[in-house]
Amino acid sequence: MYKINENYLKLPESYLFSTIAKKVNAYGAANPDKKIIRLGIGDVTQPLAPAIIQALHDAVDEMGRAETFRGYAPDLGYEFLRKAIAENDYKARGCNIAADEIFISDGAKCDSGNIQEIFSTDNRIAVCDPVYPVYVDSNVMAGRAGAFDKLKGTWSNVVYMPCTADNGFTPELPGETPDLIYLCFPNNPTGAAITGRKLQEWVDYACRVGAVIIYDAAYEAYISEPDIPHSIFECEGARNCAIELRSFSKNAGFTGVRLGFTVVPKDLRCGGTALHSLWARRHGTKYNGAPYIVQRAGEAVYSQEGKEQLKKQVAYYMNNAKYIYHGLREAGYTVSGGVNAPYIWLKTPDGMTSWEFFDRLLETVHVVGTPGSGFGPSGEGYFRLTAFGSYENTVEAVDRIKGM
Amino acid sequence: MYKINENYLKLPESYLFSTIAKKVNAYGAANPDKKIIRLGIGDVTQPLAPAIIQALHDAVDEMGRAETFRGYAPDLGYEFLRKAIAENDYKARGCNIAADEIFISDGAKCDSGNIQEIFSTDNRIAVCDPVYPVYVDSNVMAGRAGAFDKLKGTWSNVVYMPCTADNGFTPELPGETPDLIYLCFPNNPTGAAITGRKLQEWVDYACRVGAVIIYDAAYEAYISEPDIPHSIFECEGARNCAIELRSFSKNAGFTGVRLGFTVVPKDLRCGGTALHSLWARRHGTKYNGAPYIVQRAGEAVYSQEGKEQLKKQVAYYMNNAKYIYHGLREAGYTVSGGVNAPYIWLKTPDGMTSWEFFDRLLETVHVVGTPGSGFGPSGEGYFRLTAFGSYENTVEAVDRIKGM
Repeated sequence: MYKINENYLKLPESYLFSTIAKKVNAYGAANPDKKIIRLGIGDVTQPLAPAIIQALHDAVDEMGRAETFRGYAPDLGYEFLRKAIAENDYKARGCNIAADEIFISDGAKCDSGNIQEIFSTDNRIAVCDPVYPVYVDSNVMAGRAGAFDKLKGTWSNVVYMPCTADNGFTPELPGETPDLIYLCFPNNPTGAAITGRKLQEWVDYACRVGAVIIYDAAYEAYISEPDIPHSIFECEGARNCAIELRSFSKNAGFTGVRLGFTVVPKDLRCGGTALHSLWARRHGTKYNGAPYIVQRAGEAVYSQEGKEQLKKQVAYYMNNAKYIYHGLREAGYTVSGGVNAPYIWLKTPDGMTSWEFFDRLLETVHVVGTPGSGFGPSGEGYFRLTAFGSYENTVEAVDRIKGM
Repeated sequence: MYKINENYLKLPESYLFSTIAKKVNAYGAANPDKKIIRLGIGDVTQPLAPAIIQALHDAVDEMGRAETFRGYAPDLGYEFLRKAIAENDYKARGCNIAADEIFISDGAKCDSGNIQEIFSTDNRIAVCDPVYPVYVDSNVMAGRAGAFDKLKGTWSNVVYMPCTADNGFTPELPGETPDLIYLCFPNNPTGAAITGRKLQEWVDYACRVGAVIIYDAAYEAYISEPDIPHSIFECEGARNCAIELRSFSKNAGFTGVRLGFTVVPKDLRCGGTALHSLWARRHGTKYNGAPYIVQRAGEAVYSQEGKEQLKKQVAYYMNNAKYIYHGLREAGYTVSGGVNAPYIWLKTPDGMTSWEFFDRLLETVHVVGTPGSGFGPSGEGYFRLTAFGSYENTVEAVDRIKGM
């Protein structure tokens, strides 16, 4: 008789955003007259930039002609895209990353869930608290997390690194030595950024203790301050200890288009084994490449027109962030984030829990945000709003909250 | 100090098709004057059908307008596509499968590699021999396969079910009881089909011993004979023991577009746990939905125009299959497959090994096929050709082989 993967049963409840969607759908069904504004899930709302639309149309036409039709893509991605990334995201920033160290995928969520597979199930992970749920959940499913403590909301075999107002929402080096360290900067959910000096400390630490940093830089396009690194490979030694996850979702509006990539430097070795070859093997065996038309759309992100158009798109969202940040401060909230990231992190008022505030916001002003506690115990008493709405909706939501 | 997943190191060599690609590239580089014809990897060559091209353009336009832009897709797939599948692939064939039992994905290769994750690592798998390499390799990576016997080319903890000329290339019920049974019909690589009566025996067996059948029906569109089931859910009891994998790659030419789906019936339960909820959890946590534009392309597959255009596309490839089948028979080869599947399975002449015949074909007539031994020990002495080339190339390849 077959058996299931019992680790799945340890997961305490359904994925955070599914839970929110269910609550919002139920509220909407019961209150069809209320206009709900969604600043919860980090989903973009602006249409794809004209340069990207043109690239998609062109690629679709190619797929309709026998002479230019393309079947299976190379497992690891088309050369034209890998080169554009190496040139623009790395070489232009002084990072030494070659095109063949870049693995194209259908998005950073998949990669951040799958990357743990190439490591031993004995390894111990460290995560920021609060944290993007996929890092922990994918390790729970693989059996790496230990037992769940319902009271604390933590896993026995996970090293938690609290990110609180006290440390400016950037973690301290952990007391216990982990094997895999998940870092995400600019941060989801807190919107905090990390300085180059501070990130270098992490790289030095990882090299010293023999840990791998899985660095999620999905939000790097939102960095506005000069001393904030866009890539961990701006740090010395990172080629020996880091993997970087990147996304087209937030810098180019690809949440519904699906494209991302992972950088595994060839210098990252465990004994005689290059992690690059393990990830290549995983990609080759369990993945079949991103769609050709989508990779051409990705290439357009790096064209001159694409860059200009997307700079404006990012500025549009960051203008929203500013409006939320200042509006909530004026209304007396304690707010952070929003300067190098599209997320605003606010302290819930009157000692409310995160979910209490979620319900209150939904029921009183019909605005959807994300409860901080859904990202980990240190997120309790906090709440995330995103800058990805339309400007009109963002203004209306903030004004409604101010009037509460 | 972190450790890697040691199971990856057990994999004896790189993925079959990567190895072939390397050999062919090396030969091409050394012999730039030779026209190589590729009938190796099962990659389509005909352009996307006009109805699909139109759907893609329309969806791209939607993504360029704020009013119709779509962000994240529902994790499990858009309702419009799940309904079209339920209606056309299941209800129309008398199968009781609901839209919400269908999980949209970026292809059957990913699903067939990932599906093992929801099962215990203690489970024992059974596979046909020869077999599509992903089933075994993904289980090796998860630690389910045991040790590799280099001499035999088999894994100690895998139940092999030989598919040979003696049993018409369909497996017998295994002597040892497995937990998970991978079946693929019409079969890759042998091109063999299974009758409804025979498949019912497998469903009855799985229900009796408490096994799950993972049924890969990626090639069902190529079935031409009436008594061959298109879905395992045509069998009674399959809702209690089977998961079905389906692809748009071969029926609609989507190898470079990426779309597939997996059916997990809600009746499939292990004790109190529905496998449906486990797969939903995996999809929700480690996947982020197929691109909107690609799902609209999938919907067009089921439109009246789409169906008519694709019927012709499948007929085009099956005409190639016929040409290969009869051409090789005339040349004295022992040939099977090619009637309900786009694959022709031939016995290598003069007692050559599969790789010897591969090299000979490449070097003598510059035709690329796939060595049968790459699919498992019982594939030794066999060779796969695919019908997915252009008609002109197929004719030329067969004529070259005939002239050898």
